Amino acid sequence: MATDRGITQYPDASELAAGFASGTTDPRTVMEAMLARIKRLEPLVGACNDLVAPVSLLAAAEAAAARWRAGTPRSPLDGIPFGVKANIAVEGLPWHAGVAAFRDRTASKDATCVAHLRAAGLIPMATLNMHEAALGVTSDNQAFATTRNPWAPQRIPGGSSGGSAAAVASGMVPLALGTDSLGSVRLPSALCGVVGFKPARGEIPTDGVVPLSLPFDHVGIHARSVRDVACVLPILRGERERPTPSHDHPPLAHWLLRASRTVDAPVVETLREAVASAERAAAPVDWSDVDLAAVRRAGLLICERDAARHFATALRERPEGFSAEFRRLVAWGAAQGPARVRAATARLDQARYALCEALRDRLLLGPTTPHLAPRRHSPIPTSLADFTVPPAIAGVPAISFPAQRRNDGPPIGLQVTGAHSGHVLAAAASLCSEIAPVAEPSASGASPNQRSEVRETR
Amino acid sequence: MATDRGITQYPDASELAAGFASGTTDPRTVMEAMLARIKRLEPLVGACNDLVAPVSLLAAAEAAAARWRAGTPRSPLDGIPFGVKANIAVEGLPWHAGVAAFRDRTASKDATCVAHLRAAGLIPMATLNMHEAALGVTSDNQAFATTRNPWAPQRIPGGSSGGSAAAVASGMVPLALGTDSLGSVRLPSALCGVVGFKPARGEIPTDGVVPLSLPFDHVGIHARSVRDVACVLPILRGERERPTPSHDHPPLAHWLLRASRTVDAPVVETLREAVASAERAAAPVDWSDVDLAAVRRAGLLICERDAARHFATALRERPEGFSAEFRRLVAWGAAQGPARVRAATARLDQARYALCEALRDRLLLGPTTPHLAPRRHSPIPTSLADFTVPPAIAGVPAISFPAQRRNDGPPIGLQVTGAHSGHVLAAAASLCSEIAPVAEPSASGASPNQRSEVRETR
Repeated sequence: MATDRGITQYPDASELAAGFASGTTDPRTVMEAMLARIKRLEPLVGACNDLVAPVSLLAAAEAAAARWRAGTPRSPLDGIPFGVKANIAVEGLPWHAGVAAFRDRTASKDATCVAHLRAAGLIPMATLNMHEAALGVTSDNQAFATTRNPWAPQRIPGGSSGGSAAAVASGMVPLALGTDSLGSVRLPSALCGVVGFKPARGEIPTDGVVPLSLPFDHVGIHARSVRDVACVLPILRGERERPTPSHDHPPLAHWLLRASRTVDAPVVETLREAVASAERAAAPVDWSDVDLAAVRRAGLLICERDAARHFATALRERPEGFSAEFRRLVAWGAAQGPARVRAATARLDQARYALCEALRDRLLLGPTTPHLAPRRHSPIPTSLADFTVPPAIAGVPAISFPAQRRNDGPPIGLQVTGAHSGHVLAAAASLCSEIAPVAEPSASGASPNQRSEVRETR
Repeated sequence: MATDRGITQYPDASELAAGFASGTTDPRTVMEAMLARIKRLEPLVGACNDLVAPVSLLAAAEAAAARWRAGTPRSPLDGIPFGVKANIAVEGLPWHAGVAAFRDRTASKDATCVAHLRAAGLIPMATLNMHEAALGVTSDNQAFATTRNPWAPQRIPGGSSGGSAAAVASGMVPLALGTDSLGSVRLPSALCGVVGFKPARGEIPTDGVVPLSLPFDHVGIHARSVRDVACVLPILRGERERPTPSHDHPPLAHWLLRASRTVDAPVVETLREAVASAERAAAPVDWSDVDLAAVRRAGLLICERDAARHFATALRERPEGFSAEFRRLVAWGAAQGPARVRAATARLDQARYALCEALRDRLLLGPTTPHLAPRRHSPIPTSLADFTVPPAIAGVPAISFPAQRRNDGPPIGLQVTGAHSGHVLAAAASLCSEIAPVAEPSASGASPNQRSEVRETR
């Protein structure tokens, strides 16, 4: 991987690291390729906000290469570059959460999750574009950049971690951190054709993350293979050795779904094919009596109320530092009376119970989202997050992985949800053993991304 | 440890396992000592419900000893015996959750957590007594056994995992599994002077656990040292290697507490001493505006409602298989109207938010419970679980560890709560590096426990 052009099967982080160990490649070579790729593709994708100065990145990569040569890598992923969603603190980099009001704020220290990766030798390269304040799915951020879907530039990448998913999908970084409160890691991962993992609550530290709704906020991982997630998860947890993952998992039940106004036909068909090929399929689960739309609305209400609380000072002092849309959403959240909030929490309590019940001795397999990536500037279906909300509000792990592509259509993601990360990863690995391909967006497919100006720092 | 008498400093599981590795002791010797200890102390403590047949236990221990001799132990804890709360399935053993109606039910397969321990070579010895259906704190179970506090036979051991805490406290087993929905691992651990750990939601699989309230139910660990918890946790998670634990943790803030009607003076004093000796103490946290009693009542309401749901069939078909007290509690839970349930879920939502906010970049140190172990047959202070409920309903990890004993009074536990298990364990290890002593109850301190009949199986 010495050059960035003409490669259709880009290695994942595990394969790159195996190359570091065997000496067939080294962190500096990989860093050079990533920098070249970012330089070439970023104007088309709009995934990055701030790039660490290349001279620093190359020096860090060189140091990792020296450790590998000396036989003293800090971890199995020493020297692997990664990107970080702009709401997660990276020391010395802007930390604005996609909010104009915080444009000039710099993180004074790493979030613990970033510090854990850094201690293991991984190299933060860039902050990645996101939907304003993590509250939305287009990742069309008027104050920073408009992220395109690398597989379909006329479609949205999803969000709120749209830059993270798009950066990984286009091979700019092998790994990226995102955050997921109602689906913000899994949704863009599904729409951009990469793997997106939301851990159990508490599994990855969330300090240094700009909150949306604290009890729902998770740090998640975007990668191009399930094995990369399994490899980086223990590091993010703060463990110093890589445990051997188990391959066992409970039986896999799929959601009973019919194509309808609210679920696209190719999505239903994709699920059907995956179920047919699954080794440990169980009886399907009928969730038609759970009003997923109501659960999603309840989750959103709580997030909007909590965001109003968290951003209160900045909203009062610098209202012009937020979009009108964001101000409208949180004003609505803040204005809801106790009765409505109580009804919402009861609804979430109910959904949490139903999901825990369903996951007692099985895993659930379903689509990550009912829809193909919506076209830009067209209305976003309100049901886009219907399947990602329940695992988030229940705090249970869930992973989205790319299903077999259908007729060059946009990517479709499937979601495995379970009570336990080990089981979720084992099942996803059995359903998706391949490395997701990288997208090769071309200028012909999209007008240049005018608003995307990548700043270099340090 | 070839005999069970006259030993004041019993080794913890880590030390026993170190002895297996060095050859100074072996699993069979340890198993013999445990069996002798159970035989001698069980009539005084009442911790066990069903004991695996000694011949099977000794054979399993001998097999582990052979693996150690061959240099092929299954894990660092191969051959360590453990006990299991009676609501967690152990293949072939009764699985009744302390409910008379389920007295004759046998588990057809191991709960995943038990299977993980067994795969690592640990040996399940016995099912342990518990408060009926995990809904209560006395562990005085009229249908099975009355567990005494091994340090103070006239006091309750706490619950609902009273048998688990008492078995570990009296050195019958070095490790035990319990369950914790509102404090059921931490509370009896505090009152019995052992370490009790409730992981993050999803960290340890909960299949094979008789539910109380699914979204709140956690499997937890009782041990005699923090390092034992750190050693067994990755095994319970399903990892095959033991990761090197980190010693880093965020600063430790303590709860501002004053001795009052609701907090016993020795508890406040114990916290003060611990804070004075802590290395990374932060500014205290004032939670006086959080109505902990209301949060506890809301958590209880939801548990009682959920228990009514889960036990509905059995309650209808075999009402005589439940105590009048249990029937009264769940009938109350089931009878609450939507308005009251909504208010309760909103209250829990609020507490969850407040705790997540408090844990953003620090850990909390406080007492595990405001009270010394209550005397048997005296009224139980309703506030006993006030400090254990918030981490349970928020799904964040929390550990109780024994503080320095005060004038031979009953044990006092302190609780560290955090967003992340690694941090919680690191902080607890820095505050409590010792192995908890074992209690040596004597017949003079208590009348023999008439109801405790340990059945032997297999």
